[in-house]
Amino acid sequence: MKGYRDMTREELLAERQELNERYENYKALNLTLDMTRGKPSPLQLDLSNDIYDVLNGDFKTAKGQDTRNYGIAEGIEEIRAVFGEILGTDKDNIFMGNSSSLNQMYDAIMRSMVFGEVDSPKPWAQVEGRKWLCPTPGYDRHFRVTETFGFELIPVPITEDGPDMDMVEELVKDEKVKGIWCVPCYSNPDGIVYSKETCERLAKMETAASDFRIFWDNAYVVHHLSEDRNEWGKLPDMLSLCESYGHANRVYEFASSSKITFAGGGISCFACNKDNMTYAKKYLNAQTICTNKVNQLAHARYLPNAEAVYQHMMKHAAILRPKFEACQNVLNEELGFDDLWHWTNPKGGYFVSFYAMPGTATKIVSMCKEAGVALTPAGASYPYGKDPQDSNIRLAPSFPVIEDIEKAVRILAICAKITAVDKLLEDLK
Amino acid sequence: MKGYRDMTREELLAERQELNERYENYKALNLTLDMTRGKPSPLQLDLSNDIYDVLNGDFKTAKGQDTRNYGIAEGIEEIRAVFGEILGTDKDNIFMGNSSSLNQMYDAIMRSMVFGEVDSPKPWAQVEGRKWLCPTPGYDRHFRVTETFGFELIPVPITEDGPDMDMVEELVKDEKVKGIWCVPCYSNPDGIVYSKETCERLAKMETAASDFRIFWDNAYVVHHLSEDRNEWGKLPDMLSLCESYGHANRVYEFASSSKITFAGGGISCFACNKDNMTYAKKYLNAQTICTNKVNQLAHARYLPNAEAVYQHMMKHAAILRPKFEACQNVLNEELGFDDLWHWTNPKGGYFVSFYAMPGTATKIVSMCKEAGVALTPAGASYPYGKDPQDSNIRLAPSFPVIEDIEKAVRILAICAKITAVDKLLEDLK
Repeated sequence: MKGYRDMTREELLAERQELNERYENYKALNLTLDMTRGKPSPLQLDLSNDIYDVLNGDFKTAKGQDTRNYGIAEGIEEIRAVFGEILGTDKDNIFMGNSSSLNQMYDAIMRSMVFGEVDSPKPWAQVEGRKWLCPTPGYDRHFRVTETFGFELIPVPITEDGPDMDMVEELVKDEKVKGIWCVPCYSNPDGIVYSKETCERLAKMETAASDFRIFWDNAYVVHHLSEDRNEWGKLPDMLSLCESYGHANRVYEFASSSKITFAGGGISCFACNKDNMTYAKKYLNAQTICTNKVNQLAHARYLPNAEAVYQHMMKHAAILRPKFEACQNVLNEELGFDDLWHWTNPKGGYFVSFYAMPGTATKIVSMCKEAGVALTPAGASYPYGKDPQDSNIRLAPSFPVIEDIEKAVRILAICAKITAVDKLLEDLK
Repeated sequence: MKGYRDMTREELLAERQELNERYENYKALNLTLDMTRGKPSPLQLDLSNDIYDVLNGDFKTAKGQDTRNYGIAEGIEEIRAVFGEILGTDKDNIFMGNSSSLNQMYDAIMRSMVFGEVDSPKPWAQVEGRKWLCPTPGYDRHFRVTETFGFELIPVPITEDGPDMDMVEELVKDEKVKGIWCVPCYSNPDGIVYSKETCERLAKMETAASDFRIFWDNAYVVHHLSEDRNEWGKLPDMLSLCESYGHANRVYEFASSSKITFAGGGISCFACNKDNMTYAKKYLNAQTICTNKVNQLAHARYLPNAEAVYQHMMKHAAILRPKFEACQNVLNEELGFDDLWHWTNPKGGYFVSFYAMPGTATKIVSMCKEAGVALTPAGASYPYGKDPQDSNIRLAPSFPVIEDIEKAVRILAICAKITAVDKLLEDLK
């Protein structure tokens, strides 16, 4: 098939007619399909249904501590050891939270707002015009946190290797730039794995702010679609890397079991170096007596080490792979004939990032909605929800069943084609 | 037996000799007894060991929502209904947290520090010389939170009816006074239940600060030692009460299941009026996607209403009552002969508050330590850890077994007598 740009006005009009029929046919089906959020599917959640069976009336840690009672603010040792193994750092660098790692990120910035970091000249709330770097497209909930705290969100384009480091190195010369959001493994939504060089440069660069922080959200650290173990653990341990360049305080790392066990009932953690940890604990020990240790124990018994996590994640991958493949197949089938659009084919994570013809994403999303397909709002992956190209649409194929994914992606593709044809016809006028 | 003040120097010396022998005998036993924290005992925790059995592979709420997945930031409806019933307020006024209600209190003040309250002229972090009222003796962890946030802690003596309201009404004329800690039911450590008049006056009083807040920590709302249902639910619903006096925004109420199910794995909540809730949610929805809903579901199925909670709490009471009685018996036996000291005999909660002869509490605690009895540091229940009378010692009889309580309290009583005799001998010099 010819590319649209090579078509005559008549050919485009004919194509438009055909696409419109297909679109109307789908509309007539009164579908309700949801591709909005990166949620695990019920089948994936079922994998952990027996997680509390391991408790079996015995709530004591290996050391004999009663998880049902108060205490052990940093979390029980055995679960810190599991996350330590996954993140490639020592268990003593880890502080356990409740189900939400986002909550830990928010709290970390909140602490800096009120008290400053250990190496801050003053609390961040007192820094007028504070700024935060946002590799873009990125995770909308990250952006919302720093927006809520009054940071100016500075977009930094993301490349195949991670954020554009030339730009980052330039931007951090501004002392008002206090930090950067990073999803280093299968970035949300592009599925990028940061290159070794990117990690090195992030660790090495000089920043004007003495208290610059990398928020290293390792949300998908074990969320590979492939069984190939070579795909695992490609990222360096960012804590050591920063330390090796003399910036030991630079990084907070985050992870959770939200997409390993239960998104609505898992456990999370953050990791940092000793200075940051000692300082954070001063406030964390005022904030709480402990997080949910019974849940930590259940997780530690259920997934006692990285190998157990690998085996468990392979069960997730077996469910997710065909969904991601279905997505690719429909996109290739419908849109492979032209390069007006492109999309990612990630090796892990939870998203396919679709780039429509610039200027059409908003229209595509609204047309999809009319046909019963809920998509994340166009621009959602950009600071302030504004994609300057109006091109990116984040697809989340994890939750729906394959049949629904195929329908939803096909409708998306039809809408992408309709809007492209309309745009080209407009240009021909 | 004669009171010490009626004894001659010789009689006191003889008494001292005898007490010393008893003390040394206990010391020789090399005991390790802990009466420091209000922790439930293993037997109490055992009461809820089967709490996760109710899940039984079915993780859906009554409305069919999957608790294992993301969403429902405010918590599932059925558990909000249970806490609503307990607190005498509507479920829509309730926002669920994870295991720690202290964490919710800390976060609430943190929000006010950075963003202010809905009716604040400016964020509290910008209020130089901000102050907080601390009914005293009170809960050390409360005081620590407001101290951490840089509030000056203003002690207000607690009476049989709650905080001294004449003083409170006077103090709130200072606009720098932003709030007050209250444990209205079985206050920590005195076991006071606020009178209806105290509640009324707290709700009614005019405060100079437009954004004055009562932190109503209903930690022991269902923690009665008596089976008498008349003891239950004596407190007014503070939300309605404040509203009825035109101060609807005044109160945040807190509760948790820490001493109902698991201290290290329960659930907590806060309650407030609509304006506060809408405002708080603006930030809470940036902070987290949801708290642990699987645990909420387990709790809602395990304790589906206030009656189920009552039945469950009566099992706790059956374990706790003999411990509190043992405490009273030993204190009466050893110290009932004199009024140099006094102590509380609470109808609920987790503490017995012992008032030694002024100027002796620190010495008593250190002598107890030497004899293997760990007590909360003298002064712990006072702002900045300083009891101006050096008199109060908080006893926590919940955790140890009865035999240990008897030993520990007897040693405490002996030390109280020794220090009193020494003080009186000193005065006779």
